[in-house]
Amino acid sequence: MRQAVARCETMNHLLTVSALAIALLPSAAPAQDAPSPNAIVAAAPAADWQAISAEDLLVMELAPDRDGNDRRVVIQLMPPPFSQPWVENIRILARAGWYDGVSINRVQDNYVVQWGDADAEDAARARALPGDLNPIGAKQYLQISTAGAEGAIVLWHPKQSLVDSYADWAGFDAGWPFAFEIDENTRRLSRWPVHCYGMVGVGRGYSPDAGSGAELYTVIGHAPRHLDRNIALVGRVVEGIEHLSSLPRGTGDLSFYEDPAQRVPIRSVRLAADLPESERPAFEYLSTESASFANYADARANRRDPFFIKPAGGADICNIPVPVRQAGAG
Amino acid sequence: MRQAVARCETMNHLLTVSALAIALLPSAAPAQDAPSPNAIVAAAPAADWQAISAEDLLVMELAPDRDGNDRRVVIQLMPPPFSQPWVENIRILARAGWYDGVSINRVQDNYVVQWGDADAEDAARARALPGDLNPIGAKQYLQISTAGAEGAIVLWHPKQSLVDSYADWAGFDAGWPFAFEIDENTRRLSRWPVHCYGMVGVGRGYSPDAGSGAELYTVIGHAPRHLDRNIALVGRVVEGIEHLSSLPRGTGDLSFYEDPAQRVPIRSVRLAADLPESERPAFEYLSTESASFANYADARANRRDPFFIKPAGGADICNIPVPVRQAGAG
Repeated sequence: MRQAVARCETMNHLLTVSALAIALLPSAAPAQDAPSPNAIVAAAPAADWQAISAEDLLVMELAPDRDGNDRRVVIQLMPPPFSQPWVENIRILARAGWYDGVSINRVQDNYVVQWGDADAEDAARARALPGDLNPIGAKQYLQISTAGAEGAIVLWHPKQSLVDSYADWAGFDAGWPFAFEIDENTRRLSRWPVHCYGMVGVGRGYSPDAGSGAELYTVIGHAPRHLDRNIALVGRVVEGIEHLSSLPRGTGDLSFYEDPAQRVPIRSVRLAADLPESERPAFEYLSTESASFANYADARANRRDPFFIKPAGGADICNIPVPVRQAGAG
Repeated sequence: MRQAVARCETMNHLLTVSALAIALLPSAAPAQDAPSPNAIVAAAPAADWQAISAEDLLVMELAPDRDGNDRRVVIQLMPPPFSQPWVENIRILARAGWYDGVSINRVQDNYVVQWGDADAEDAARARALPGDLNPIGAKQYLQISTAGAEGAIVLWHPKQSLVDSYADWAGFDAGWPFAFEIDENTRRLSRWPVHCYGMVGVGRGYSPDAGSGAELYTVIGHAPRHLDRNIALVGRVVEGIEHLSSLPRGTGDLSFYEDPAQRVPIRSVRLAADLPESERPAFEYLSTESASFANYADARANRRDPFFIKPAGGADICNIPVPVRQAGAG
């Protein structure tokens, strides 16, 4: 019975929305041998996988855990046109070694893990930022929300889209999850990347402060979508999120660690492109424009593999994580 | 621009849906001094808080952590008419001391923590279940999905409801989150409790196995709503979920712990009603029928406190957690 929004009369600019074949109507009865979403991904042909540029991969090494185990977290940076002033700042900060020696300072259950300079608000002790960072003003939040869709006037919305609690609909484009909204008066479209589990954003103070990219966080709970269009998203964790999500929760205000000894030191943050080839990770994502992804998304929305009794007939955008894997894993 | 579903002509049986005053239309501009959701909850009068019966609270004591700290998890069991055969079994198992000495065996990132008898599938070593458990068949899943709404014929849906990706709409009743659906042919309503962060459900094998309540799990990631109507929900964690969500992730199949030494022993599980008065926890929840809750939910959907630039104009049911606190904390 689910439909994304009342369908308006069609017309106009076609958008770069994935042709996502999610069955929004009640689905067929479970088949005994229907493949699981994971099985669909495992069977995807190599051509359906897109390499992620080494310029878009950030490798964060935490201090080893209590048992001496390495803890590596790999983050994929967001492609243009979204949040690029911050993304460029993050590359500058990583290349300057600025993040080396900062720490994870906040772990809030069902919300975020946050890292940066614990002394950032103490002028006498704060770590100086490189001089060549892009200055970013509050207006750039608006750019995030409309990037990629400027000028489009939409009287139509795509049939293959997801019902969304925060927007007119949701869908995927070029490997990332987005929400879409049409302005009631101008019929202009805006779209924005969404705060799903594992997405990485830019810490900031009260507006007009917009953050620089020196303070970052990732989502470790139910998607805090109320942050969409309020904080810049700059990427997502593609490996090692368990090193962040399983950290002890902070007990101070906003779940910051009360005792500096609880902070987790960050040894280094590097762009993969800057690492020696032997240490350079390589990842690829399942093209959200591929038939494999459409089948995977449909199976996430309508589980027909044997464990399931009642396929849902729909899915939340954040419950269809875009598959990402180490290159060559197929 | 968001509306729950196309509004059909009205008529009929009014439902026990909360009069939830969520503004689904674009909200007013942020006010400098608008209270945060937490501030609204903190200001709620005592009369808006509902005590939770000690018969409905399950106290699970894990073995101390590596530093010797206690780890207590408190679970609120689900009230009638939902899942009561399993809920009764859980009370029987707790009163028999059956859970004492079982363990946490599975921790899957962004999904679930699961506990029970690690040897349950080894007939020679499995812990015997009490003889007086309710036998439960697959048919009872259907009862879950319609409980509380049998016979209601609905041509109407409540104005104050949430857009939902998995159902016709979502809302709150008596302190719990539900999804609602109207059968297209019969116009009959069904509703079911939903898999939000912290909800507790009953592990089971392939259908027709329906589980007994001896094997339980809780959600520690983005709401896995595809499990709704496929697995019985029996409660939610109201305190101490961080002792579960921050455990190391398992590395075996389905993220079970590979090495038995990684399992976390459960010392005891007791009903609060069976504990000595001095050890008995007492909790209360914010009535979902109260004006305070309506204001809180509206503020979750439309953040107007100073940090926010763009109120969302809507919210996912699982992003409006029902406030629960220790009794007397107000």
